[in-house]
Amino acid sequence: MSNKPSILIVGAGAIGSFYGAILKKAGCSVSTVLRSEYDAVKANGIRITSPLGDLSYRPDNVYRDGDTPTETPDYLILCVKVLPGVDRAALVKPWMGANTRLVLIENGLDIERELAEAYPANPLISCLAFIAASRTAPGEVEHKAYGKLVMGRFPEGIDDDCRTLADLFIEGGISIDLTEQVVGERWRKCVWNTPFNPLSVLANGADTLTILDTEGGEALIRELMKETMATAAADGHPLDEQLIEQNIDGTRKMPAYKNSMALDYLNGRDIELDAVLGNVVAIARHHGVPVPHLTTVLTTLRMREKLKAKA
Amino acid sequence: MSNKPSILIVGAGAIGSFYGAILKKAGCSVSTVLRSEYDAVKANGIRITSPLGDLSYRPDNVYRDGDTPTETPDYLILCVKVLPGVDRAALVKPWMGANTRLVLIENGLDIERELAEAYPANPLISCLAFIAASRTAPGEVEHKAYGKLVMGRFPEGIDDDCRTLADLFIEGGISIDLTEQVVGERWRKCVWNTPFNPLSVLANGADTLTILDTEGGEALIRELMKETMATAAADGHPLDEQLIEQNIDGTRKMPAYKNSMALDYLNGRDIELDAVLGNVVAIARHHGVPVPHLTTVLTTLRMREKLKAKA
Repeated sequence: MSNKPSILIVGAGAIGSFYGAILKKAGCSVSTVLRSEYDAVKANGIRITSPLGDLSYRPDNVYRDGDTPTETPDYLILCVKVLPGVDRAALVKPWMGANTRLVLIENGLDIERELAEAYPANPLISCLAFIAASRTAPGEVEHKAYGKLVMGRFPEGIDDDCRTLADLFIEGGISIDLTEQVVGERWRKCVWNTPFNPLSVLANGADTLTILDTEGGEALIRELMKETMATAAADGHPLDEQLIEQNIDGTRKMPAYKNSMALDYLNGRDIELDAVLGNVVAIARHHGVPVPHLTTVLTTLRMREKLKAKA
Repeated sequence: MSNKPSILIVGAGAIGSFYGAILKKAGCSVSTVLRSEYDAVKANGIRITSPLGDLSYRPDNVYRDGDTPTETPDYLILCVKVLPGVDRAALVKPWMGANTRLVLIENGLDIERELAEAYPANPLISCLAFIAASRTAPGEVEHKAYGKLVMGRFPEGIDDDCRTLADLFIEGGISIDLTEQVVGERWRKCVWNTPFNPLSVLANGADTLTILDTEGGEALIRELMKETMATAAADGHPLDEQLIEQNIDGTRKMPAYKNSMALDYLNGRDIELDAVLGNVVAIARHHGVPVPHLTTVLTTLRMREKLKAKA
C-alpha cells in the first residue's frame, strides 16, 4: 500500500481525467466520482493519449454520483464546469471528510467562495489549468499540449498542503507554479478570458484573429481588457497595464484559434458565463466600476440563454 | 392620359410595391425597375393583399435594372435596402432626369447624404415608413397593417414637391405626416430601432419581451437609447428624455414580436447594420459622444459578418 495521499476526482472530464492520471503516475491512489461516464470508466478505465506518453489508468475506485462512501480522501479534486444549475457544494458533500483538502481545478473568477463558505474547516486549494485537452468519447481523453497548474491556498498563501500536492504533480510529470495570490492570478487569466471567451460566443464562434481583425475589434478587446483590469484593481488586485499589450501581441503571434468557450457553444454545451464574465461584472458593480462593454456582452448572452431556454 | 405626375419605383420589394400601389390608386402612372422580380412582375403584375382591399396592379412599364430609359419620371421613389454592397447613387443614375424629384422610403439614419451629394440639383424627399408588410413570393406582397409615411425635404423643410406627393398618397388611401425636420424624425425613430433591431440580431433573433425581460435587458436597452439620444442631441436634434419611457412602455404593451432586422437575420438576408447602427456610432465619434454600449453591439455584429463572409 502506498503511504501517499489518497485522491478523489469529482467530475472526470478531460481536465479531471488528466490530472488524476498525473497523480496516479506519482503513485497516489486515485478514485473518481462519475455520472454519465460511469459505465465506460468502470468497464475500461480512463484512456488518455498524450505527448507525455500513454497516461491510461484504472481508477482505484469508480464511484457513481450518489454512492455512499466508505472512506473520504486526503485530497478531493473538483473539476466540474461552473454552471448555475450545478450545486458544487452539494456535489462534493458526501466525500468531504474532516481532513479532506478541497482542490479546485476550474475556470473563472470568484468560483471559490461558495465552497469556502460551505466547508470553512477544510483547507481550500485553488488551481488554474493551462492545458489543451479534450474528451473524445466516454472515458477517453486527448491531451494535446501544456498542463501547467498555477496553485495556491484560497484566499491567499502557500501552505504544506499545497506543497505536498504540488510535489506529487511534479513527480507525475507536469509543472506547477505555486502562488501566494491565487485570486490575483485568476484576475490575470481573466484579462484574456473575460474579453475573448464570451465575445467569441457572441460572434457565433469567431476565432481569435477574426475578432482582432474586424473593424473596431481590437479596440473593443482593449476596452474589455481595461474594464476587467479596473475591476481587478478595485478588488485589490492591481495588474500591470502592459498586460494588455502582452495579451494582444501574444494572441496575434499564435495561429487563429477558437477558445474552449467558443467550442462549447458551437457544440451545443453550456458555457461558463457567470464564472468567466458574470462574476466580474458583479464585482465591478459592487465596487462602482463602470463596465459598459462587459455589461453589453454579458446581457446579450443572457438574452440568448433566455431565448434558448424558451425554445 | 393622366396629368398626374409619373412615378418610377426602384426596388419593388414589399415597401416599394405597396407605395407604388397607393400612387397607382391615386391615378398616377407607376412604373418599376426590377432585378430578380422582373420576370414574375412582367408576366403577372404585382399582387398585394391588404386590409385596404386588393391593391394588385400592373405597372405601366416594367424595366429591368440596366435598361436604357426612354423617359425619366417626375418622382423616382427608391426603396432598396441600404447595404454596403449597394451603390444607390449608381442604381438610380439612368433614371434621373433634370426635373426628377428623388424620394427615399428607406430605413435608418444619414442615408440621404450620398444621394444628395450625387444629385445636388434634384430635390430630395426623405420618408420614413411605418408599415407592416412582407414579400411572400416574386411579385407578391402581404400588407398586414399601418402604412403612414413621415415625409420632408432633406435636409429640412416642406415644399410644393412634398405637398404634391403627400396629397397623392393621401388620395391613394394612406396618411402622411409632413415634417419640417425629417432628420430629427429619423433620430426619433432610431431611439427604438437602433437599440432593439441590432440587439435582437445579436441575441439570435430574440423578440421584444425576451430582450426586456432578461436580467439586465431593460437596463441595457435604456443605456442604448440614452447613447442614441445623446448622439442625436450632439447632432443638433435634441429629443425629449421621456421618449425612453414612452418607447419602453409602448413596447411592453404590445405582444412580443420580432422586428424586421431580426427576421432578415433569421431568414439569412443581409441586415441594414450601418443604416441603423453604424452611422449612429460614426456620428457619435464625430461629435466625441461616448457610446460604449452601441459600439459593443456594432463591433460584435461586424465580427459575425466577417465570420460569415469567410465561411
